[in-house]
Amino acid sequence: MMSDNKNFVKEITNIEEDFAKWYTDIVLKAELADYTAVKGFITIRPYGYAIWENIQKYADEKFKEHGVQNIAMPVLIPESLLQKEKDHVEGFAPEVAWVTIGGGEELEERLCVRPTSETIFSTMYSKWLNSWRDLPYKYNQWCNVLRWEKETRPFLRSREFLWQEGHTIHETAKEAEDFTLEMLEVYADVIENLLAIPVLKGRKTPTEQFAGAEATYTVETLMHDGRALQAGTSHYFGQNFTKPFDIKFQNREGKEEYAYQTSWGISTRLIGAVIMAHGDNRGLKLPPRVAPIQVVIVPVAMHKEGVKEKAEELKNILSKKYRVELDVREQYSPGYKFNDWEMRGVPVRIEIGPRDIEANKCVVVRRDNLEKIEVNLDELSEKLNDILENIQANMYNECAKRAKEKTTIANNLEEFIENLNKNQGYVKTMWCGSEECEEKIHELTGAKSRCIPFNQEKIGDKCVCCGKPADKMVVWGRQY
Amino acid sequence: MMSDNKNFVKEITNIEEDFAKWYTDIVLKAELADYTAVKGFITIRPYGYAIWENIQKYADEKFKEHGVQNIAMPVLIPESLLQKEKDHVEGFAPEVAWVTIGGGEELEERLCVRPTSETIFSTMYSKWLNSWRDLPYKYNQWCNVLRWEKETRPFLRSREFLWQEGHTIHETAKEAEDFTLEMLEVYADVIENLLAIPVLKGRKTPTEQFAGAEATYTVETLMHDGRALQAGTSHYFGQNFTKPFDIKFQNREGKEEYAYQTSWGISTRLIGAVIMAHGDNRGLKLPPRVAPIQVVIVPVAMHKEGVKEKAEELKNILSKKYRVELDVREQYSPGYKFNDWEMRGVPVRIEIGPRDIEANKCVVVRRDNLEKIEVNLDELSEKLNDILENIQANMYNECAKRAKEKTTIANNLEEFIENLNKNQGYVKTMWCGSEECEEKIHELTGAKSRCIPFNQEKIGDKCVCCGKPADKMVVWGRQY
Repeated sequence: MMSDNKNFVKEITNIEEDFAKWYTDIVLKAELADYTAVKGFITIRPYGYAIWENIQKYADEKFKEHGVQNIAMPVLIPESLLQKEKDHVEGFAPEVAWVTIGGGEELEERLCVRPTSETIFSTMYSKWLNSWRDLPYKYNQWCNVLRWEKETRPFLRSREFLWQEGHTIHETAKEAEDFTLEMLEVYADVIENLLAIPVLKGRKTPTEQFAGAEATYTVETLMHDGRALQAGTSHYFGQNFTKPFDIKFQNREGKEEYAYQTSWGISTRLIGAVIMAHGDNRGLKLPPRVAPIQVVIVPVAMHKEGVKEKAEELKNILSKKYRVELDVREQYSPGYKFNDWEMRGVPVRIEIGPRDIEANKCVVVRRDNLEKIEVNLDELSEKLNDILENIQANMYNECAKRAKEKTTIANNLEEFIENLNKNQGYVKTMWCGSEECEEKIHELTGAKSRCIPFNQEKIGDKCVCCGKPADKMVVWGRQY
Repeated sequence: MMSDNKNFVKEITNIEEDFAKWYTDIVLKAELADYTAVKGFITIRPYGYAIWENIQKYADEKFKEHGVQNIAMPVLIPESLLQKEKDHVEGFAPEVAWVTIGGGEELEERLCVRPTSETIFSTMYSKWLNSWRDLPYKYNQWCNVLRWEKETRPFLRSREFLWQEGHTIHETAKEAEDFTLEMLEVYADVIENLLAIPVLKGRKTPTEQFAGAEATYTVETLMHDGRALQAGTSHYFGQNFTKPFDIKFQNREGKEEYAYQTSWGISTRLIGAVIMAHGDNRGLKLPPRVAPIQVVIVPVAMHKEGVKEKAEELKNILSKKYRVELDVREQYSPGYKFNDWEMRGVPVRIEIGPRDIEANKCVVVRRDNLEKIEVNLDELSEKLNDILENIQANMYNECAKRAKEKTTIANNLEEFIENLNKNQGYVKTMWCGSEECEEKIHELTGAKSRCIPFNQEKIGDKCVCCGKPADKMVVWGRQY
């Protein structure tokens, strides 16, 4: 059985040797996604999609608590609409897919498959809005979008991805800005409490802002290899769209005014974040709260009298409180199954055989630290709750510890490069605010500004790049 | 206040005078959907989308009980894939939208926006399937599809619509056929128990089958004006796709065999069915189980001391069990609000004013029959349950009564035409099974075969059209 195990693990590339290949191995072997006949397009398989469903359920509930309602907008956007906001079209036009033929005929105006839907929401808001009494509109859609990326990677950068895009308009600038930040907090909640990944919250530098935004806020995360991943963004548009799209209302003084707008999104990219933040050489490692299967029961000596029956009984009891799978596949040994479920990242495995049954106990094996715990069967259902919560917390703490270890301070570019090459991770520096310095840093280090963190620390007073006076602390990192 | 009411109702076209215009009025005024900048594409507004969410939740739970798992497939399908099954491409190619440019470059092969996804599921099944042990695959996706219809109508026939498409493959023909029918039963459950619309279950005649199917089963419904609406279909493909797509497995005897396939779908068309099956001259009428708002509280003499507070208290109590809205809009009179919520189809309205509060009671008004019921406030939460269940049952019964009244038997074509012109509705006849008779009937009457009902009755032994021996009873009707 041991050779069985070893062969199995061997099929996965070592995580320290080739992280990119390790990632692809996990995506395919854990059956999260697969490549399709269309270049750059993936299919999300049931196990991956169930993770997305859990994210959707959690986030959607939070959105609704904030008064957000769901809606469906057309998937196609006329070219003339996309062009109404200058920065926006410049940002997105190069990477869209165009529908030019419909129902056998060349279209008079070509239609793009939405890369994002600010423009189409804006036309409808313009049509619907009359009075301040109508405001705010807080709408969201769960849908697919297309961006014709040159290099693609499952979940992280696909030509099609699933996401939610929230679009709101408000009576005042303050209300809109506040809502932008409220939604950022929802994202932080999803990522920290559901996905067990700590986030760094802050504002994007102007060059990293969304095309057409007045301000972009972000939640950044750090992966196993020390690279950063932008996990969710929330944008404040001011009146940048409401003016060209004529979204105005009669205000409380009876005067016409343009509304204030926001948009915000998280996507199936988060599945990539979960893989890369938690995984190890045994494979995927899923936080219990988002895991499609929280507990897998593997009977040992399955053909001995009463074993399968006891395992089934256990499954029925535990299914009342947990998402449980019972593995009675005939063609595999228990050892194979142990490895298989570890590779698939199931947080807890229960092993139960004839001797366990006799002693009215079972063995609970934790995926996060591989600890084996003997548990009395009568106490199992209750104890599992503590164990799963403990795993969730432990996984968060492990990530937080890594982020702390991989965060350094640099006072000059030499230190910057040295830190990055040793550690990857986040590099904190002071920054003068100039685009030139940002570009130079990117050229020299390969790192981009992640954000200007909300929690500013005074780590110096000179720009890491040009040495001129600087009052902003920025966090940088190489990114996915 | 009465003139208020009348003007309000006047804005909606009379349902008996112009049903099509009445329908559009309801869709727009109840804010279920709206037209967009793209011809034939609608936006589903929050109130309409919330109906869809309730349908999704109910159906998705049932699918999962039958072992179905969700998945996401690419929205674009290469032309070569679409062409692999002859009947399928003939059926769909004329009405697809083609993406010809992506990322600024002309594509080597054009990609259609999926009109349905048999082809893309089939390529993946071919890739994944090895052994009989892998079977069945029971996958479903909730997504958008495009069909470039010439004439469009919100929900009923849009160029884009939302739906679920289930695609399964099985080890044996029997298992696949059984599953096709199992899913048809789920649809009947959704439509009858959630949407309160009785269905007619049966098999489509060969000419009405899905492009590429071996057998298509359907649940048919009858609308207010006596026209039929196909509400859901479930298809058995045999090996029609598994052969050209090479979906084979090693069977229990160790031999290669092609799998047996099904697909099945319901769509946002069901929202159209709800509108047209239940609505009346006051507007929309929603069955309580699917209504986004089940109970609306309208305070009367809202500015009298304690009224608003009592209404809020009531809202908090009732919200624990029901989906409740409290209407405290300052700019409208109670009379206006009564009509507004009736138009939006909310099943129950609660009126509460100073005298009610003094007597510790309120008035409950049913949307289905306009009955007013005085209820003691202490008993309200409990009684509402019975009232809502009674409304649900009553709405189903009303529809069933109409379907019965509008179902006739015809022994020859003269009777057929006479019945239809008087009644619209379903016409039952015997049918010889020939395509020619079906075509002739359609030409002469405008009716198409709805289905060959599972519940066959012996109403004669000669074909209604050609007079030759006939052993099948078919139900016909003019359709949406």
